[in-house]
Amino acid sequence: MIIKSPLELHTIVVKILVAAGTTPKNASRVADALVASNLCGVDTHGVFHLLSYIEQIKGGLLDATASPNILKETTTTALVDGNWAFGHVAAKYALDIAIQKAIENSIAIVGAVRSNHIGRVGEYVELAAEKGMCAIVCASGFAETRPMAVPYGGREKAMHTNPIAIGFPGEDGSSMFLDFATTAMSGSKARLYKIRQHELPIGTAIDDAGYSTTNPFLTDDGGSLLPFGGHKGYGIMAAVEFLGRSLTGSANFREKGKGATPMEEQGMTIIAFRADIHQPLSEFTRFAEDTSDKLRSVAPAPGFDEVMIPGDPEKNARLERKATGIPIEDEVWNSVLEAARLAQTEI
Amino acid sequence: MIIKSPLELHTIVVKILVAAGTTPKNASRVADALVASNLCGVDTHGVFHLLSYIEQIKGGLLDATASPNILKETTTTALVDGNWAFGHVAAKYALDIAIQKAIENSIAIVGAVRSNHIGRVGEYVELAAEKGMCAIVCASGFAETRPMAVPYGGREKAMHTNPIAIGFPGEDGSSMFLDFATTAMSGSKARLYKIRQHELPIGTAIDDAGYSTTNPFLTDDGGSLLPFGGHKGYGIMAAVEFLGRSLTGSANFREKGKGATPMEEQGMTIIAFRADIHQPLSEFTRFAEDTSDKLRSVAPAPGFDEVMIPGDPEKNARLERKATGIPIEDEVWNSVLEAARLAQTEI
Repeated sequence: MIIKSPLELHTIVVKILVAAGTTPKNASRVADALVASNLCGVDTHGVFHLLSYIEQIKGGLLDATASPNILKETTTTALVDGNWAFGHVAAKYALDIAIQKAIENSIAIVGAVRSNHIGRVGEYVELAAEKGMCAIVCASGFAETRPMAVPYGGREKAMHTNPIAIGFPGEDGSSMFLDFATTAMSGSKARLYKIRQHELPIGTAIDDAGYSTTNPFLTDDGGSLLPFGGHKGYGIMAAVEFLGRSLTGSANFREKGKGATPMEEQGMTIIAFRADIHQPLSEFTRFAEDTSDKLRSVAPAPGFDEVMIPGDPEKNARLERKATGIPIEDEVWNSVLEAARLAQTEI
Repeated sequence: MIIKSPLELHTIVVKILVAAGTTPKNASRVADALVASNLCGVDTHGVFHLLSYIEQIKGGLLDATASPNILKETTTTALVDGNWAFGHVAAKYALDIAIQKAIENSIAIVGAVRSNHIGRVGEYVELAAEKGMCAIVCASGFAETRPMAVPYGGREKAMHTNPIAIGFPGEDGSSMFLDFATTAMSGSKARLYKIRQHELPIGTAIDDAGYSTTNPFLTDDGGSLLPFGGHKGYGIMAAVEFLGRSLTGSANFREKGKGATPMEEQGMTIIAFRADIHQPLSEFTRFAEDTSDKLRSVAPAPGFDEVMIPGDPEKNARLERKATGIPIEDEVWNSVLEAARLAQTEI
């Protein structure tokens, strides 16, 4: 385990990305996203991914110099072409458009196609909240090239982890936000369980006959991840599939040899709307903060120390790591060193 | 058990509502909603509720003659005052506004306050789908006057069943829609379990100490319903709370002696957007139907006969009941007869 300050880690990530051919602007954005994920405790979406991004650049799947552009737009909509840049770059570009259109027209919906891994979807709704915006962000289309999850009641892979985030502004940043994979366990966590040979929790995976399993190796080989929350969670997973892939028509933008699997047909959708559409923003945030405080003050059930609201784990980790630095596990740090070697630089 | 055709049942509901003082226009809308719920198998949102609505009219909580109106609006937003009419009337009015604004501006968001029970939220997204619209509909604010559910990790009631529906157009009506309470079991189902003295499924409720229980009587007395799907389902429940109550500011519209508990602070939000914002509607529906068919063709897991997509149970029930009529259980039919007596009419 090593400890890095956010600034140290950011500098390292930028250096490696630039050495691998990334433009300074794109490198800075990707470093923002990765370090922000580590800072808020979501290590599965932090520098853990850096090595794979460098490999994707080397393999020509990810264009580290590309910038996104708008394919078509109206006052309330836009479709963004990521030009196979970093997903973090394309998604932030799409978010900024959605926010600007929502500032002007109360609500907007923006899609993005032809991009790579967009990272922690919670980041985008937190950024929107800072602008007084409620936002819904989701991405899908991954099952076309790498199915990982079964539909509820099925035993064959046909879906993926289809992440969704929903966030709301508060008095300072976001009042509440959710951010999760619609599988019972995220793909990155499943990968960590396999690396560490840890038994999966019951209810996260099935084997190829459809029976429950705790074998972490089966999620890549025969077995499948389950949707969270039974048929209801499957409903959210399916809605994300329709909102992302179907709505953007991302399959029509697929291009041979572009996009790191499973991003070839990724479609992302952002819905952003002003929190002050019906009342002053201060009234909205008062209701939002009062509800958050009410929920946090509920007496905990056996086995719990406290009641949190969605987003609290990230906010708590951020406070702690801002003070004490970002801990990076040895296996992750070794992959960062390997990324530097691959990019022919030193850190 | 008795069997009624949709037309027979509709005629009966209209007759009782009109006899209780409802305007013919409102009565027709409420009958549409209740019979449509029974027709698609969601009996918990059908004529099961009629007696309580008649009681609410008699008690002055529900104004059976009121019509909703717009409190404020922009090209993409509106806030609807339900004037304590039937929720079905206010919500349909809000939906029609959202659809019209989305036709003209691609996407719209409409809220409603001061109304009663809006019924099956899935109805609204199905109606939107018929117009080529994707829609998200949710309602909340119920916990202020009747908390029923704990937050994840808590043992005290502070939330409610916060329903959500999300739907998408298909080649004929909706391609897929979800519609569920964000508790592990809906409030109406919990009420039926109590009436029938059936044991609750594990994972739906806890007792007042926070331990799992299957005692259906505890959901009204000491115990609480659980969110579906652990912390992720709790996230959706919380998002619905913010989208409904916080966004509309429904608490500011509360009025003493108006609204049948727990509807006093209900806030409802509809987001509707054209499915053809990025591509022709036929392309969207092709992707949507292909995904639906792909999921339905997945081999079922042990214990399942088939894989469905969200909305299939309702569609299957609708086909069957259109052919064979709507079965109504004796206890529900007796409550309809009691509603007729209370309204001083005969059916």
